[in-house]
Amino acid sequence: MHLIALGGLGEIGKNMMAVEYSGDIMVIDCGLAFPEEEMLGVDLVLPDITYLLENKSRVRGIVLTHGHEDHIGALPYVLRELDVPVYGTKLTLGLVQGKLTEHGMSLRKGKLVRPGDSIRVGPFQVEFFRVNHSIPDPVGFAIRTPVGTVVHTGDFKFDHTPVDGEVTQFHKLAELGDEGVLALLSDSTNAERPGYTMSERTVGDTLDEVIATAKGRVIIASFASNVHRLQQAIISASRHGRKVAVVGRSMENVTGVAAELGYLRSPNGTLVEVEELNRFPANRQVILTTGSQGEPMSALTRMAAAEHRRVEIIPGDTVIIAANPIPGNEKLVARTVDNLFRRGADVVYERVSGVHVSGHASQEELKLMLNLIRPRFFVPVHGEYRHLIRHAQLATSLGIPRQNVLVGENGTIFEFTANSGTMAGKVTAGQVMVDGLGVGDVGNIVLRDRKLLAEDGVIIVVLAMGKQSKQLLSGPDLVSRGFVYVREAEKLMDEAKGKVREAVDKCVERKVTDWTSIKGVVRDSLSKFVYDRTKRRPMILPIIMEI
Amino acid sequence: MHLIALGGLGEIGKNMMAVEYSGDIMVIDCGLAFPEEEMLGVDLVLPDITYLLENKSRVRGIVLTHGHEDHIGALPYVLRELDVPVYGTKLTLGLVQGKLTEHGMSLRKGKLVRPGDSIRVGPFQVEFFRVNHSIPDPVGFAIRTPVGTVVHTGDFKFDHTPVDGEVTQFHKLAELGDEGVLALLSDSTNAERPGYTMSERTVGDTLDEVIATAKGRVIIASFASNVHRLQQAIISASRHGRKVAVVGRSMENVTGVAAELGYLRSPNGTLVEVEELNRFPANRQVILTTGSQGEPMSALTRMAAAEHRRVEIIPGDTVIIAANPIPGNEKLVARTVDNLFRRGADVVYERVSGVHVSGHASQEELKLMLNLIRPRFFVPVHGEYRHLIRHAQLATSLGIPRQNVLVGENGTIFEFTANSGTMAGKVTAGQVMVDGLGVGDVGNIVLRDRKLLAEDGVIIVVLAMGKQSKQLLSGPDLVSRGFVYVREAEKLMDEAKGKVREAVDKCVERKVTDWTSIKGVVRDSLSKFVYDRTKRRPMILPIIMEI
Repeated sequence: MHLIALGGLGEIGKNMMAVEYSGDIMVIDCGLAFPEEEMLGVDLVLPDITYLLENKSRVRGIVLTHGHEDHIGALPYVLRELDVPVYGTKLTLGLVQGKLTEHGMSLRKGKLVRPGDSIRVGPFQVEFFRVNHSIPDPVGFAIRTPVGTVVHTGDFKFDHTPVDGEVTQFHKLAELGDEGVLALLSDSTNAERPGYTMSERTVGDTLDEVIATAKGRVIIASFASNVHRLQQAIISASRHGRKVAVVGRSMENVTGVAAELGYLRSPNGTLVEVEELNRFPANRQVILTTGSQGEPMSALTRMAAAEHRRVEIIPGDTVIIAANPIPGNEKLVARTVDNLFRRGADVVYERVSGVHVSGHASQEELKLMLNLIRPRFFVPVHGEYRHLIRHAQLATSLGIPRQNVLVGENGTIFEFTANSGTMAGKVTAGQVMVDGLGVGDVGNIVLRDRKLLAEDGVIIVVLAMGKQSKQLLSGPDLVSRGFVYVREAEKLMDEAKGKVREAVDKCVERKVTDWTSIKGVVRDSLSKFVYDRTKRRPMILPIIMEI
Repeated sequence: MHLIALGGLGEIGKNMMAVEYSGDIMVIDCGLAFPEEEMLGVDLVLPDITYLLENKSRVRGIVLTHGHEDHIGALPYVLRELDVPVYGTKLTLGLVQGKLTEHGMSLRKGKLVRPGDSIRVGPFQVEFFRVNHSIPDPVGFAIRTPVGTVVHTGDFKFDHTPVDGEVTQFHKLAELGDEGVLALLSDSTNAERPGYTMSERTVGDTLDEVIATAKGRVIIASFASNVHRLQQAIISASRHGRKVAVVGRSMENVTGVAAELGYLRSPNGTLVEVEELNRFPANRQVILTTGSQGEPMSALTRMAAAEHRRVEIIPGDTVIIAANPIPGNEKLVARTVDNLFRRGADVVYERVSGVHVSGHASQEELKLMLNLIRPRFFVPVHGEYRHLIRHAQLATSLGIPRQNVLVGENGTIFEFTANSGTMAGKVTAGQVMVDGLGVGDVGNIVLRDRKLLAEDGVIIVVLAMGKQSKQLLSGPDLVSRGFVYVREAEKLMDEAKGKVREAVDKCVERKVTDWTSIKGVVRDSLSKFVYDRTKRRPMILPIIMEI
């Protein structure tokens, strides 16, 4: 039996794992990642599914843990190529359907499962158990394979007081441990954090306190998919006689689906349109909105910059940023907080107050999972490399032999028999970048050019030369963008033109007549001149028109 | 009397403040900032000193608080335009001199001061008092002006057990408070942090423990200028029989200056060259190095990527990252940690262990400063807007009347008389970007173009057209960079060429003959075609060669 990491090992995002036994493949999750800073202009990143496409006829289905983008976001791309059943819980499939609709597709082979259900996918018997996470309806799996049971936790935390009352199925986990588990695959996102992750309910308490005491309007920014947090805000608002409006496209989408499927309840008349909300006095208003990560186009960011069409921040507003910045977003969030203060709002945010808890298990919970499941082999998943290492260290500290802890990365094949577990080679795995409509057509060369262009801009040199005469007929013309403000650098550009003319003249004199050589000479001489004068290295593009 | 904020208010970095009384100006600090993410290709950011240049003849001198880049880094640029005396403590002036040497300049009018000294600069009597910070020799000032005393803390923390034994001059602060202080300007960097900042000595204890117990080589990355931290590492290494080498240009520079001036002592024979270090067994080696922020070209980053010429990371190494990531650098640092783990090193870093303390005062220290000085007016400085606001809230919580707390931003003029303090207008202030040799020649237009180029690349369309005939003589030729991998998009580019030809033909047909109109038509039609087909918006540059 093989477990093949197609995403999520050595990174946060685009989680995807294949389970393979004697010709049959089942896929776990199908997520996307957001681009790294150096992926200029890239919109999304998908897992490279070359391995699945090469074995297309053997893929029996996709099982989903929960409805976050990094677990379902690649489905619109993958389902175009793999027409297989998709198994998930109610909210998860609801969100998948919403996503597919945006892509003009529909979920043809969706299979609804409930925690406790057991289904057959190829040679695998998959049993779903409930966990807790920052979205409703998350599950993990026990996958019974011919060589033994594999447990995959999905993203999880242990919340003893979950907002919806749906506690993790501890008994099921204990039972599995008693039966004997060959391998545990467990969420490593918070493996660096000591202690326990707090219950989502504690955030509700903080929100309630702020809503109860705020003198004016309360604006709460959160992840769109954190339905429990939104639910708690709505209940508090209702308790304190306030109306609630949802602002921001992604949050409107998710709350729509969640409400329709019964995951979000609003006491009679509490939820209103934002236009209606404005008819109430400020101290009877709550706005739920997106932008907790300072995303440039999001609702809160635009409100903070006074650029939102429907909501204007005014002194007396209390803004709660009910989320921690995801690594890389710290500065964007800070800028939003600064702007909100500038408009006179009071801002409640991470650094100051407890308005966020993580959806992932901290070290003590990870240990509890390990001790409940007592696996023979352990594979840390869902995390950057240091998270996997820290999680592996936790496992060995609980007595799992070092050689039974397998730390792999994307592409790794984990090979299991009833008695052994090893890392056995690699398959193709990696990143497929999406830019606009293009999937995979932006690669390293395009990115390298974008980086060069971003650093110092571009200078284009155009020459018209005689096809027969090999003489300069017109030009050189120089056009630059992103290099220097041309109106203030006319002299520099004139001298540059002179340099190019000199270079071309020399070529003509020496009877260098092939265009490639002339371009090379022009590029070198201009590049040297520009660097000497500015210490910049713009991209230089010589173009010769043959007349 | 005016205090004029030229930098450091509403931002972390490029600290600079002017004090003005009846025609005379004294400048406090002269720092640079590092570029924000959206300042593509920019190397450094300087304060805009238009106001000082307009009043050049009235500037009497520059007083420096300490030798960090964000307090002295703009001097090489500013001293070229303002030839005035520069006052600072020994290490500060030593670092300034090093900086000027790199720019082929020398410090002609450096004036050495010691804590406790009192000097006259124009109408101001400036008394220097010692504080603590993450670099030796930091000071604050009491500036006696004709309307009252202004106290400027500089960057500070209260360290009761500083490594060099030089405790903050609490008595002096208390004395000033007793005398009566018109206005306090105090460091807001850590105004969000409750409690006290730990003593630098606690880091020494952690380093000592790691060095004592490490089985192999120990590599410590730190800020180059944190001389006390380097000192503690050297003492520990010596105590445990290890030799120490310094690797990384900026750290070699700073330790050179610090050792020469007596701020860094090395027990006999402890400091060696890295080549010599390699002759000792691994468990007798310590390397001090740069790269604690994951900077791409720094020594540790290159070691982690196996690209360093002189040091290779091997299993058994212990790497200590003795610094917290500066906001914005989190991902770079995380990537370095991941890579170090991949090479088999053990990594001690922020998330796991206490190997860093801040150089800035936390809330309880800020309150102590306020209570010692008991100023009539309070101006929070050195911080992003939310830090200034939090600091202002602390001040009012101690009983300073709200209207006496003045929160300004860069450019703000704070106007004081013996009895009043207000914000009275603005002067020109802001950012001057340095890119290569160019100071200020990269502005918003250039940055906007770089951003466009970075997002979707560029398509250049070249046409040769007859001057008289107004006919297309050659082309259109299309050249693209950073748009799409051309070899795999030949069809798209061919169609695009067809679209351009169509557009030009139409112009010729309709007798549209001025080049600007033709370019406009080409740009619009190509832009629309490309967007429809790819949902990308590359920059489109039509160039017409007139033959």
